[in-house]
Amino acid sequence: MYPESLKRLISELERLPGVGTKTAERLAFHILKAANDDALRLAVAIRDVKKNLRPCSSCALPTEQDPCAICADPSRDRATICVVEQPKDVYALEKGGVFRGLYHVLMGTIALLEGIEAKDLTIDALEARVRAGGVREVILATNPNFEGDSTSLHLSRLLAPLGVKVTRIARGLAAGSTLEYASKTMIEDALEGRREVGV
Amino acid sequence: MYPESLKRLISELERLPGVGTKTAERLAFHILKAANDDALRLAVAIRDVKKNLRPCSSCALPTEQDPCAICADPSRDRATICVVEQPKDVYALEKGGVFRGLYHVLMGTIALLEGIEAKDLTIDALEARVRAGGVREVILATNPNFEGDSTSLHLSRLLAPLGVKVTRIARGLAAGSTLEYASKTMIEDALEGRREVGV
Repeated sequence: MYPESLKRLISELERLPGVGTKTAERLAFHILKAANDDALRLAVAIRDVKKNLRPCSSCALPTEQDPCAICADPSRDRATICVVEQPKDVYALEKGGVFRGLYHVLMGTIALLEGIEAKDLTIDALEARVRAGGVREVILATNPNFEGDSTSLHLSRLLAPLGVKVTRIARGLAAGSTLEYASKTMIEDALEGRREVGV
Repeated sequence: MYPESLKRLISELERLPGVGTKTAERLAFHILKAANDDALRLAVAIRDVKKNLRPCSSCALPTEQDPCAICADPSRDRATICVVEQPKDVYALEKGGVFRGLYHVLMGTIALLEGIEAKDLTIDALEARVRAGGVREVILATNPNFEGDSTSLHLSRLLAPLGVKVTRIARGLAAGSTLEYASKTMIEDALEGRREVGV
């Protein structure tokens, strides 16, 4: 029923996360109706993200200039490296504005069932950074789930023998949440991670 | 915080209907992470929709071949033209599979407050089609709202003197809806459009 080009656009839009057929059709009709320039700006923006961004040679964060703005910032603490799974995790931590060290983006997690091994991530580069010296602490900030935990375990075994302090971000109840709606795992984490209250 | 290219992609995605900042970021991160080929296929599909589709010279429906598949179909009733606002209305009617005539896509409605006049739509071309002869009935299928109604009124005044039968699609209660949730306008339409029941 749709012309070929429109059909192809709908099927490409459907591959985006959280976009079903109805939404893909709605977006495609919008693009069909939009001014040529507006639609082409979107196409060019997609192409540019793939063309202009390269992993930072130090931390692997996608960047236009190498090294990235964070690695190049002289005010950051170069002795602390926070290890995250994805670029979006760096942006989330930067939004917090609390961490002032450098990052290392793994570009995934070890997920053997999906065939993703340590060598598919930027783990070799992380080891080289630590071996190069000057790093005091590596903070493992992978997500608190099965893959994130396994990856952190792998990294702690790899890095601890190099004489660097290896830490894992805290887990427990999220600020603003309630015990009432916490899952069993959250409650276990909260109890296990309890700290003595100073008086 | 984001590199320039990523920032630009997020702001272009935000211009899509129903896409807020959070969704635009999610989609942009997906594109950032996606394989090069997958991302480029989406960019090319957007470009192709604007490049390959041209309005059908007869009905204005976007098409790769002129005339479009519907206008070129010899099995369709060429004496009946259904006038709609947008290409997506043609697809909606075709999904119904009931109408077997030809279409005419106005590419909008008369909306004087937004500066859209009759001359900005494909109304001249519609008049020419009717004047060319062979058309028995023009069905006005613009949406049942203020702009759709004004546009239909304008078209009926323009076309009726040409000796063609001009009809407007029925309005009333939508099949599957209930009186309980019908708005005042729907109830007015349903009462005004009542028909005598055959015995």
